[in-house]
Amino acid sequence: MNKVPFKGVIAYPITPFDKDEKVDIYLFRKLLERLVVSGSHGIAPLGSTGVLPYLTDEEKEAITEATIQQVAGRVPTLVGVSNLTTEKTIHHAKFAENAGADAVMIIPMSYWQLTDDEIVAHYDAVASKISIPIMAYNNPATSGVDMSPALLKRLLEIPNVTMIKESSGDIQRMHYLRKELGENVAFYNGSNPLALAAFVAGANGWCTAAPNLIPELNVDLYNAVQNNDLENAQNLFYKQIDLLKFIVAKGLPRAIKAGLHILGEDGGQLRSPLKPLSSQESSELKEILSTITDKVYQS
Amino acid sequence: MNKVPFKGVIAYPITPFDKDEKVDIYLFRKLLERLVVSGSHGIAPLGSTGVLPYLTDEEKEAITEATIQQVAGRVPTLVGVSNLTTEKTIHHAKFAENAGADAVMIIPMSYWQLTDDEIVAHYDAVASKISIPIMAYNNPATSGVDMSPALLKRLLEIPNVTMIKESSGDIQRMHYLRKELGENVAFYNGSNPLALAAFVAGANGWCTAAPNLIPELNVDLYNAVQNNDLENAQNLFYKQIDLLKFIVAKGLPRAIKAGLHILGEDGGQLRSPLKPLSSQESSELKEILSTITDKVYQS
Amino acid sequence: MNKVPFKGVIAYPITPFDKDEKVDIYLFRKLLERLVVSGSHGIAPLGSTGVLPYLTDEEKEAITEATIQQVAGRVPTLVGVSNLTTEKTIHHAKFAENAGADAVMIIPMSYWQLTDDEIVAHYDAVASKISIPIMAYNNPATSGVDMSPALLKRLLEIPNVTMIKESSGDIQRMHYLRKELGENVAFYNGSNPLALAAFVAGANGWCTAAPNLIPELNVDLYNAVQNNDLENAQNLFYKQIDLLKFIVAKGLPRAIKAGLHILGEDGGQLRSPLKPLSSQESSELKEILSTITDKVYQS
Amino acid sequence: MNKVPFKGVIAYPITPFDKDEKVDIYLFRKLLERLVVSGSHGIAPLGSTGVLPYLTDEEKEAITEATIQQVAGRVPTLVGVSNLTTEKTIHHAKFAENAGADAVMIIPMSYWQLTDDEIVAHYDAVASKISIPIMAYNNPATSGVDMSPALLKRLLEIPNVTMIKESSGDIQRMHYLRKELGENVAFYNGSNPLALAAFVAGANGWCTAAPNLIPELNVDLYNAVQNNDLENAQNLFYKQIDLLKFIVAKGLPRAIKAGLHILGEDGGQLRSPLKPLSSQESSELKEILSTITDKVYQS
Repeated sequence: MNKVPFKGVIAYPITPFDKDEKVDIYLFRKLLERLVVSGSHGIAPLGSTGVLPYLTDEEKEAITEATIQQVAGRVPTLVGVSNLTTEKTIHHAKFAENAGADAVMIIPMSYWQLTDDEIVAHYDAVASKISIPIMAYNNPATSGVDMSPALLKRLLEIPNVTMIKESSGDIQRMHYLRKELGENVAFYNGSNPLALAAFVAGANGWCTAAPNLIPELNVDLYNAVQNNDLENAQNLFYKQIDLLKFIVAKGLPRAIKAGLHILGEDGGQLRSPLKPLSSQESSELKEILSTITDKVYQS
Repeated sequence: MNKVPFKGVIAYPITPFDKDEKVDIYLFRKLLERLVVSGSHGIAPLGSTGVLPYLTDEEKEAITEATIQQVAGRVPTLVGVSNLTTEKTIHHAKFAENAGADAVMIIPMSYWQLTDDEIVAHYDAVASKISIPIMAYNNPATSGVDMSPALLKRLLEIPNVTMIKESSGDIQRMHYLRKELGENVAFYNGSNPLALAAFVAGANGWCTAAPNLIPELNVDLYNAVQNNDLENAQNLFYKQIDLLKFIVAKGLPRAIKAGLHILGEDGGQLRSPLKPLSSQESSELKEILSTITDKVYQS
Repeated sequence: MNKVPFKGVIAYPITPFDKDEKVDIYLFRKLLERLVVSGSHGIAPLGSTGVLPYLTDEEKEAITEATIQQVAGRVPTLVGVSNLTTEKTIHHAKFAENAGADAVMIIPMSYWQLTDDEIVAHYDAVASKISIPIMAYNNPATSGVDMSPALLKRLLEIPNVTMIKESSGDIQRMHYLRKELGENVAFYNGSNPLALAAFVAGANGWCTAAPNLIPELNVDLYNAVQNNDLENAQNLFYKQIDLLKFIVAKGLPRAIKAGLHILGEDGGQLRSPLKPLSSQESSELKEILSTITDKVYQS
Repeated sequence: MNKVPFKGVIAYPITPFDKDEKVDIYLFRKLLERLVVSGSHGIAPLGSTGVLPYLTDEEKEAITEATIQQVAGRVPTLVGVSNLTTEKTIHHAKFAENAGADAVMIIPMSYWQLTDDEIVAHYDAVASKISIPIMAYNNPATSGVDMSPALLKRLLEIPNVTMIKESSGDIQRMHYLRKELGENVAFYNGSNPLALAAFVAGANGWCTAAPNLIPELNVDLYNAVQNNDLENAQNLFYKQIDLLKFIVAKGLPRAIKAGLHILGEDGGQLRSPLKPLSSQESSELKEILSTITDKVYQS
């Protein structure tokens, strides 16, 4: 088993729905294929972008199986299995492992603010039931809980919790992870507008939905930093930052779906209560994409 | 139909679990009975206190039916039916109406931050499918979205959205609701430490889990304000404030369960990842309860 | 010496400037007289409303002397003597005592965030140099430091620190002060929109600039609470709340000056960089005052 | 006149006091000389580090003159002239220009939250009275006002406002400045823990008190980024980050004075209410410095 199977750009697919708001698995596989062939270094279904919390258990399982089949080992897969209860999290983690996932991502969802001990016990309970590695994910904006660096350190003591994804948007957290936990800890950036700063701070990878729209720019940024080419990295980053900020500000599922439409790709429907971007927001996105790609879009 | 069926103290039962973390319906009914006979003016199952989001659909339905049967019309019932997706919210709202609930409470749960338009459409979709009144519930700490007074005003334009529950903890919100929406809008306080200030500001009722532990003090506070007896209200409030702050700070399900145990009542188990209070926290709670009731507790 | 010389409505005069932005002492005395004769229970020059930090030492001394002379013992006076350095704070505190002030108010101004020990030493150093009582003032929005209830408790151990003014806008702070420090601690509310809730929570007084514009409503609210007439207090509060919120939102010196002009009184000029309200803001204020007083204003 | 006279490391001296808390100009010049000879690219007296707001007008003028004389043109000087009132800010800006400063730094100090229009008028009034360039400084933590990127854009339209110093600690602000205002806008980082990320984002310089303690590491980091040597920059940054975080967390004047003492240099006294670090804090600082310099310190 590879304990840290990811580096570079880890792409997050959306979960598309049909006109009756049912999951469209066929379209999902098509969108997944685009991510693989356009150079992403890993694939992460059932993340925030994939509206994990809005799906039924059966839908999550279908997405998981479709991902493993479609990716077919070309790049490693990271399956989101987060759930409010420990029991359900275990259920989905085991399902992902059995289906062939390379790793699972777990965010400590919380309705009631969890204590540090509850969070550790939660990860521990899941970790004891599977053998594949776990990426612990900190994103206070969606989970409602902000795991302190000290807590992340505790989680890393659990044998198969081997990776940290930080989406709090604070570059100091990454400085801390690198400084306190040593060069060998694998941490990943989940905050799109921090892409450059995080790679420079030593992040192993970038967890992002952006490859649905601008895969080359994402991968080129990673390569520029790898090649120690700071000037090029800076230019590549400033070329894509407006898009990175836009998709975060508008909500990834809404923004990616609208962007796919602009690029001439079918992104399916959203599930209520989520609604499409307004026409003004779509126009703004079209302009950002036009500036980046130097193309004029009709739709 | 009574469009505003609640006033006074609306009590929130916990959802107790057995040692296998299954819902214990028998114990739930027993705890419910305590709330009714101790003078609460309304009963609200499946709230935050009742760990709604940690339950399966079947468990929610069982709790709903058990509540209607046990309360048996002695006081009005307010059933929580919130869900991340609109479809599921409609499902549970219809179930509650069919089961005989007097009203439903809906908080706009959000993983992805919802826009105002999405929230309005969400309530509108549910409201159009049921006939009983809806209490719209604002609690940024648990839902992740803070509904502005302007948005609450829009929600009140939906015919059967007739009540607002405010738990943001800011007394100015209640001043705004009373001032802007007029004396006829029914607003309820969901922030325990604001109990006195909210009643004085004109709140119709107090949504609280405290009657599980100190029902008389809760009801007496309401009566003192009703009787224009400010000095007594102040004394009653200061007598219970430490408990009100404690149960909020520690998380209502954890704190109520621990408090029931101290009072010699069985509160069942919690569902993971939630864990019991530490023994130090329980001792602190025991001291608070002893000071209030002037009794010494063994457990 | 009266250790707690204040209760009820403590009025804050503005410091008016002439067209060259020099302090206009003649006009200041005129505005002060209005506050005394309209029923305020105390007068507090050189507060935030009086733009204390924008004045030179000489100007502060002139204001202090003018206040004592004009008020002439009719009501007690509370002189603001806060300064960034301990040495200057002592200087002004001694000046106020010599001039005949009944008490001084001190907020721990801070450019560099002060530690609790630094704040205690600061108050202690001043207190040891004067005999009149000190009101410790907590207002994070203007001072940049939020004194915790625990720190306020420490300050109250200094013999002549006998009063607390709380302007953090959080009613829970007042609950804490009353609950933890006992019924004998004198605490005052400095947050205008909390006026009703604070009196109900047991505040001894209300420190406010509002009597420059609506003295009767302010005093009537206090009296209603004193008379245990909750319904009347509620009505009086809701009648004035829009004004209370407006003057806080726009900045007290700007708003009071504009309000005086609307009422036909000369409020003088502001000192740069402070500028008058925009004409749209003034219109808004005129409408609020018209609604309250049932009069039409020309200016 | 050079409109953008600074790049690289701009060093901030502390203002030392004698045992009577009077400014010690002789010691100040000695500390200044250390900064110049150790390679700093610019010198900025009367900043936050130099406790500007705690000084009298005469003291500020003495510091200004001493700086110009001691630096003697070896590197450019940036004199802090911020004041609450516009009139005083103009006074000190003119004094600095006459004394020979290369530029002045102005932060919009505010007791009353200033409107955007008031801030623009404040800078405009000062700018019209001097010919040397102005660095506009954004630091919400000390000034109490957070200038939005849009406001900073407006300030840059004033002819001699040619530089921006950003200390809000948010790397996105620098991305915005570079992206929206173009490559030609000179922006400087004032947040020590952002040193690496800010240089990578394109900052022209780093405004910092750290050269009082570790001048070589500061300058080497700048040079590494200039030389496009990302790996070296990362190593140099992680070597100094603990010190950078410590001096910010403890307050620059307190921490620099303690650090100088550890290094065997006299940093003088602080002015009350500021007090020295506790002995425990000093020990922590000694350990950080020992780790960085690989030396053992006695004091």
